[in-house]
Amino acid sequence: MKGKTISEIKLGDSAFFEKTLTRTDAYLFAGITGDLNPAHVNAVEAEKGMFKKQVVHGVLTAGLISTVLGMYLPGPGTIYLAQELRFTAPVYFGDTIKATAEVIEIIPEKNRIKLKTTCTNQDGKEVITGVATCMPPR
Amino acid sequence: MKGKTISEIKLGDSAFFEKTLTRTDAYLFAGITGDLNPAHVNAVEAEKGMFKKQVVHGVLTAGLISTVLGMYLPGPGTIYLAQELRFTAPVYFGDTIKATAEVIEIIPEKNRIKLKTTCTNQDGKEVITGVATCMPPR
Amino acid sequence: MKGKTISEIKLGDSAFFEKTLTRTDAYLFAGITGDLNPAHVNAVEAEKGMFKKQVVHGVLTAGLISTVLGMYLPGPGTIYLAQELRFTAPVYFGDTIKATAEVIEIIPEKNRIKLKTTCTNQDGKEVITGVATCMPPR
Amino acid sequence: MKGKTISEIKLGDSAFFEKTLTRTDAYLFAGITGDLNPAHVNAVEAEKGMFKKQVVHGVLTAGLISTVLGMYLPGPGTIYLAQELRFTAPVYFGDTIKATAEVIEIIPEKNRIKLKTTCTNQDGKEVITGVATCMPPR
Repeated sequence: MKGKTISEIKLGDSAFFEKTLTRTDAYLFAGITGDLNPAHVNAVEAEKGMFKKQVVHGVLTAGLISTVLGMYLPGPGTIYLAQELRFTAPVYFGDTIKATAEVIEIIPEKNRIKLKTTCTNQDGKEVITGVATCMPPR
Repeated sequence: MKGKTISEIKLGDSAFFEKTLTRTDAYLFAGITGDLNPAHVNAVEAEKGMFKKQVVHGVLTAGLISTVLGMYLPGPGTIYLAQELRFTAPVYFGDTIKATAEVIEIIPEKNRIKLKTTCTNQDGKEVITGVATCMPPR
Repeated sequence: MKGKTISEIKLGDSAFFEKTLTRTDAYLFAGITGDLNPAHVNAVEAEKGMFKKQVVHGVLTAGLISTVLGMYLPGPGTIYLAQELRFTAPVYFGDTIKATAEVIEIIPEKNRIKLKTTCTNQDGKEVITGVATCMPPR
Repeated sequence: MKGKTISEIKLGDSAFFEKTLTRTDAYLFAGITGDLNPAHVNAVEAEKGMFKKQVVHGVLTAGLISTVLGMYLPGPGTIYLAQELRFTAPVYFGDTIKATAEVIEIIPEKNRIKLKTTCTNQDGKEVITGVATCMPPR
């Protein structure tokens, strides 16, 4: 269970993880973090809001990016240094989200890589975009 | 349960949320996201790693920032647009994390604000730093 | 809260436990074990698969057998020694599963019993069959 | 996210998954299955029992085998047909369990393989042994 070292990684390498995010996931995340914003845990208020239905927390969806980095590319042993996130569309309960990371920069002297990180839903619509920076395992 | 509109917010306003993050929180988050990286869920491997003990997922800690924005400042009705995160120190199971958001920019014509977002542990050590962008409720 | 000793058990004794297994159960089990196989947590992929819908983990369903043995027959104090399982039909989210254990062999000199263990769904269809071996409490 | 087909698998292939199983895991599993046997969820009774401390459910530990099969070998798309389990030693809260599956038989005409499945703790002690039968994805 060890991820790829920087010498095993090349530009354009990519990996993904996909999961249907459910009410259960959002409710557990709300409980863990304390983010019980009505947009997430109040069906009545959510209906009156901008998205018309309860939505998954953006940061929970972003957690799938962490899964890709920590489990697949680079994988176990990775140190997560930074993440930029833009939340570009809502994620509804039951949406199937695919988080993809693609290597866009390799900085061997610092043992660092940058990855374009994108989350899309079952219709191919982008819901999160951004860039991750991490250190692969040595 | 409605947050502050942009006209009720001024530069320097701040709010925080604080929680002790436990093994339970990290294990649930691992399960929700699928990030079962040994750094988080394997005591034996974590001991051999850079941080010497199991650590909380960075994105889970970042979830506390979402709590501040969605619950307190601006509060319910907020649309989360973007978040930059730098993970500057590890969070161990049992650490008490304070997430603080402080308004640093107000863009009334776009109904947008930017907040400096910081997470610190019980020793005052910064573990996450970054900037959030969001739309307060109208 | 003490189960039956071997002298209180006779051939043909049986007990059952029944529960509707939900999406929540499967998602929590996926998180605990790390088995985020798309058959369980990806609605889009599951639809393309052999079972056409997301299914409950076989081992989770088998957990209901453990409930029968540990709670009812023999009950608290039982040592679980072995379990053979055949997964004979899929369990879908929302199926109501009845796990039954029936004593088929008693070995007093080893303080051991064997039970036929069967799980059926709300239509009476068998989804798991097998044999359990355990030591009743002394 | 597709596992290996039978033609990509050879005798002796193996994979593993490792996780520290905690009180949280056992309590969630107890809740999901209803197996609230005092050996698992009653510290006072567990102390008086054969194992002297609360133990993880055997079937929960067996869930890590399901993870290996469904996530790594053969991987996504696998149909789990059967599992024999012998519970050979207790698993305590906090034990780090490594589930390993090794291909021991390949039956191409039925698209079936058998794997020796073993769980060991952090001291290398075997806690579960058995054999799994499954169909790799086509």
